[in-house]
Amino acid sequence: MWMDTKPEVKGANRRQTNTIQHVLNGLLLFTGDMRHLDKYMQDKLFVLQLAVGALRGVTMVILANNPLSGALILIALYWTSPWMSLLGALGVLASMLTALIIGQDSAEVTAGVHGYNGMLVALLMGALSSAGDWYWWLLVPACLGSATCVFLYSSLSSVLDRWDLPVSVFPFNTVIILYLLCTGPNNPYFPHYPSLPPGTLDPNDTDLVPAEVMRGVVLGVGQIYACEELGPSFLILGAVLLYSPLLLLHALLGSAIGILAGLSMAVRHECLYSGLLGFNGALGCMSIGGLCFIFNWRTHLLAIACAFFSSYVDIALGNLLGTVSTRWSSRGFFGDVSHVFAVFFSAMNSVPLLPQVGLSASSWASTIIITLMLLLTGSLATYRIPSDQVMAPEHNRSFRLSWKSGKVTEVESTDVGCG
Amino acid sequence: MWMDTKPEVKGANRRQTNTIQHVLNGLLLFTGDMRHLDKYMQDKLFVLQLAVGALRGVTMVILANNPLSGALILIALYWTSPWMSLLGALGVLASMLTALIIGQDSAEVTAGVHGYNGMLVALLMGALSSAGDWYWWLLVPACLGSATCVFLYSSLSSVLDRWDLPVSVFPFNTVIILYLLCTGPNNPYFPHYPSLPPGTLDPNDTDLVPAEVMRGVVLGVGQIYACEELGPSFLILGAVLLYSPLLLLHALLGSAIGILAGLSMAVRHECLYSGLLGFNGALGCMSIGGLCFIFNWRTHLLAIACAFFSSYVDIALGNLLGTVSTRWSSRGFFGDVSHVFAVFFSAMNSVPLLPQVGLSASSWASTIIITLMLLLTGSLATYRIPSDQVMAPEHNRSFRLSWKSGKVTEVESTDVGCG
Amino acid sequence: MWMDTKPEVKGANRRQTNTIQHVLNGLLLFTGDMRHLDKYMQDKLFVLQLAVGALRGVTMVILANNPLSGALILIALYWTSPWMSLLGALGVLASMLTALIIGQDSAEVTAGVHGYNGMLVALLMGALSSAGDWYWWLLVPACLGSATCVFLYSSLSSVLDRWDLPVSVFPFNTVIILYLLCTGPNNPYFPHYPSLPPGTLDPNDTDLVPAEVMRGVVLGVGQIYACEELGPSFLILGAVLLYSPLLLLHALLGSAIGILAGLSMAVRHECLYSGLLGFNGALGCMSIGGLCFIFNWRTHLLAIACAFFSSYVDIALGNLLGTVSTRWSSRGFFGDVSHVFAVFFSAMNSVPLLPQVGLSASSWASTIIITLMLLLTGSLATYRIPSDQVMAPEHNRSFRLSWKSGKVTEVESTDVGCG
Repeated sequence: MWMDTKPEVKGANRRQTNTIQHVLNGLLLFTGDMRHLDKYMQDKLFVLQLAVGALRGVTMVILANNPLSGALILIALYWTSPWMSLLGALGVLASMLTALIIGQDSAEVTAGVHGYNGMLVALLMGALSSAGDWYWWLLVPACLGSATCVFLYSSLSSVLDRWDLPVSVFPFNTVIILYLLCTGPNNPYFPHYPSLPPGTLDPNDTDLVPAEVMRGVVLGVGQIYACEELGPSFLILGAVLLYSPLLLLHALLGSAIGILAGLSMAVRHECLYSGLLGFNGALGCMSIGGLCFIFNWRTHLLAIACAFFSSYVDIALGNLLGTVSTRWSSRGFFGDVSHVFAVFFSAMNSVPLLPQVGLSASSWASTIIITLMLLLTGSLATYRIPSDQVMAPEHNRSFRLSWKSGKVTEVESTDVGCG
Repeated sequence: MWMDTKPEVKGANRRQTNTIQHVLNGLLLFTGDMRHLDKYMQDKLFVLQLAVGALRGVTMVILANNPLSGALILIALYWTSPWMSLLGALGVLASMLTALIIGQDSAEVTAGVHGYNGMLVALLMGALSSAGDWYWWLLVPACLGSATCVFLYSSLSSVLDRWDLPVSVFPFNTVIILYLLCTGPNNPYFPHYPSLPPGTLDPNDTDLVPAEVMRGVVLGVGQIYACEELGPSFLILGAVLLYSPLLLLHALLGSAIGILAGLSMAVRHECLYSGLLGFNGALGCMSIGGLCFIFNWRTHLLAIACAFFSSYVDIALGNLLGTVSTRWSSRGFFGDVSHVFAVFFSAMNSVPLLPQVGLSASSWASTIIITLMLLLTGSLATYRIPSDQVMAPEHNRSFRLSWKSGKVTEVESTDVGCG
Repeated sequence: MWMDTKPEVKGANRRQTNTIQHVLNGLLLFTGDMRHLDKYMQDKLFVLQLAVGALRGVTMVILANNPLSGALILIALYWTSPWMSLLGALGVLASMLTALIIGQDSAEVTAGVHGYNGMLVALLMGALSSAGDWYWWLLVPACLGSATCVFLYSSLSSVLDRWDLPVSVFPFNTVIILYLLCTGPNNPYFPHYPSLPPGTLDPNDTDLVPAEVMRGVVLGVGQIYACEELGPSFLILGAVLLYSPLLLLHALLGSAIGILAGLSMAVRHECLYSGLLGFNGALGCMSIGGLCFIFNWRTHLLAIACAFFSSYVDIALGNLLGTVSTRWSSRGFFGDVSHVFAVFFSAMNSVPLLPQVGLSASSWASTIIITLMLLLTGSLATYRIPSDQVMAPEHNRSFRLSWKSGKVTEVESTDVGCG
């Protein structure tokens, strides 16, 4: 057990050990779910409670739930791009405020459950926008999109509660795909980059670079926050470590599995190097490996299977959505062709011709697969942790062990999202 | 309160006022849900009950429930095109008879709940058909499609009842999209026009004409019945006014919001002028504003939000479905190009090339958004009216007020569809 | 009653009749659900129980449940292609073993409910693969895909159980479409043929050949196992006859209805001749006609309606999925065009151009329609047989009749899949 480590040392250096142990215990207070902070904040200003909730919300994107991790992640985002960290923070706040305004349970709001979808919407809008950084008009759809997530979250929870399923990032995935469909790449106000499908490798492509693949494993975790740089990705990994080392292991394992799945389907190498194929696997692996199921060898294998499922479904959805053409245009691509083609295309003016966009598959794959895994019946279902008792994997495990030995006490915990 | 208006006037003109009041009260009998008519019809011929139910069904398309409004709407359709009114009437009858034959609850049938989906299917088949008016073969798919709606309605109600959700126009949307997919534009028996996506504005497009936009707001309500002319649209507005003035306000408000949403996304001007972007907003706004929720300032704002959501989702789905190509063909578009392209296309004969259709997004957007809004949790959910007690907004409000003051009596009412 | 036939003959040839009757009764033991075999196997080796379950699983694809039919079907597959029968058998075993490993109810496993989805996945992977027979690498996705079906089956059953709906072949349909999306036609490891949409008839197409259409009716039943040859299709029909003659009638009726639906939509003649348009109708007709509903004239008409629905939805989905382009490429199709087009296409190198694949609509149509039919409310719903009591149509009918006359005893039966 990681949180209950109580090394028993004997001998002369006992006092020194005691000090170290004291420091360690102090440090351990900042890890895991930090439930004690909630008790401490109970009678503080509501704004402070909201701030802690917002930081918790930031970490729920990566299935953690620790305000300090949230601060680390915001720093990582600021390191990548100050504009992105502004968008992310704005997304969290916009959706939390909307939740308060439309009368959602305020305990849920201060716990941060209404923050992570909004943050992801704002981040992805920024990452996919082709208008460049500091394009202020983008704040309008970012805020409105984040606010919409709250409505979706509330509605979906009515349905999913019947099966004790978390709403997870369904609202984010829905809102971002609708936004991309609504605007399209040539939109005069909100243009964005098309997403390319993972596709198939060109026969005369260059060889795979192992170092780049290793880099892709780490970037795969960073891509959960649409972050494509190595340094910030490591900082995000650090934030996960602070919450739970077991979760970190599963994140890296899942990301590596995603790349394996990509290799087996011979996808384009860019997808492997950029980590775009890793993050669905990482999310799938983290959710099942310890978070929503008690960690043991059987659920560990299930987590690996889930990472494979998520990755393959991501490739499939990427291929599907990446070739959905949302806008057709015969302009722009044929400036350099000869006159004969001008005639040709003028003949086709009545039918627009060339598809220019693909939609991003974002995290649909892992969200769907995790939801299905939580619905599993049979002997694996006995390891499942009820949605409202999900905490850090280490805590889940010790809680279940103590529960088995009859020492259960009522635990108050909030929905971590489970994916 | 609109229905309970009891002006108390004193003085010499009391007798005259009494007469006016008497007439007014008489007129008020023809507004709202006209529940008294049901009592009057109870021991009349079954065919007459069916006729009243059919007229109610006609109005349920626009979320009203008043036989006189139904008659007005049929007149409006006849004004647009006698062929369309024939199709609409046939659709209502075909689906109501099917419901009787397959043994659906006959009280539901005479209340008209099995009519509106069938009517919409028949109307849309007529509106999208490129075979021209009075193409008698179209009656076959129109009748069969309308009949299919009853099966879908019955099946979906089994699922949606768990969450007290109305089936709404899901059957219509499903059947019409399957019909369009089945036939395609080049079908020798049932050809139809492709739907163009709202798309993006051409840079060198003409300026927006404010008068046309105002016209588009009114047409937006008419488009609920696939009606694109101003006069009939006003008649349809009159039919809504007869049912409930509050609903009329929300219809126009929603249609205007739809056009605002379209402007913010820079869609093609034709979509704004034709009202095609308005009707989803109108339906969304009407459902939430007073019909499925008690009317007050909070739900009024929710209705406005719902209109925006519906409109944006409609643009997104229009862009998606409008570019789904259901049939590929290299024929027809290249009759005027030179020989060199004939060679070119003969080389491609093995692969069909040009997408020629788009599917219509019909009212998917508003149907989905309204369903999600009805699932909302939190304090807004307390204003929601149970599906089986939905009546005219004015009645809903007075009913809830009297309910609060403890004067509730059992109310028998039928499902108005709520969208 | 087919199973309870007890001819009463009098006269001199009574003894001879007795012998014939004895033989007949003996033969009848090998028809229907063969429940007595389960009792006989109860205390036998687990491996033998699994083998019987696997044979039952093989027949559940075609909605039957009889180990001898399963053996006949395997022979039919071996007759078509030994490679396909290997794939099919492997698929059944892979998914049954996975079900045991992940701890699904072992009574369900030995009843064969975890076999049919896996078998279909493996068969379809083989049928769609363009790498030819005995391409051993295909065993990897076939086994993994079959295994995935078990997870999906288990998860979906949690949701569908709420409405007493069978999981049916949803897992197969999901897995095969994801596999096709994942790999695409140009995949270097797992290439496959594109599926062509039913499309529209060419105006200068040849006339319909009645004999070929008749052949298509029989092939339509064979196509349930992706079998496109006449002899094996007849053997499969024989396997159905062994289980239930009523089911056989509905299979042929449904297949014929599918071809009628195709004719009314003027689809390409190849689709009619190959039976590809028949198998959804056949499955729809079989499910409703006697299997999931008590057989009588009303449910027989419902079965016919269901066959029409399934067939039309299949054409619609075929048109939709068949033109979804999962991969774009400008290579390969233009080797024979002149230089001017080489210039043309080099100008388009930045945008990949030609869609080369379509996805197969497999049995989505019938699966969805059957599920909807099982949800029907109204007087038809009273004929529905609870999912866990579905047996051969003849048994269902006699059971319900005896139930009405108060002679009901507890019946243990397993879920036949109902589609």
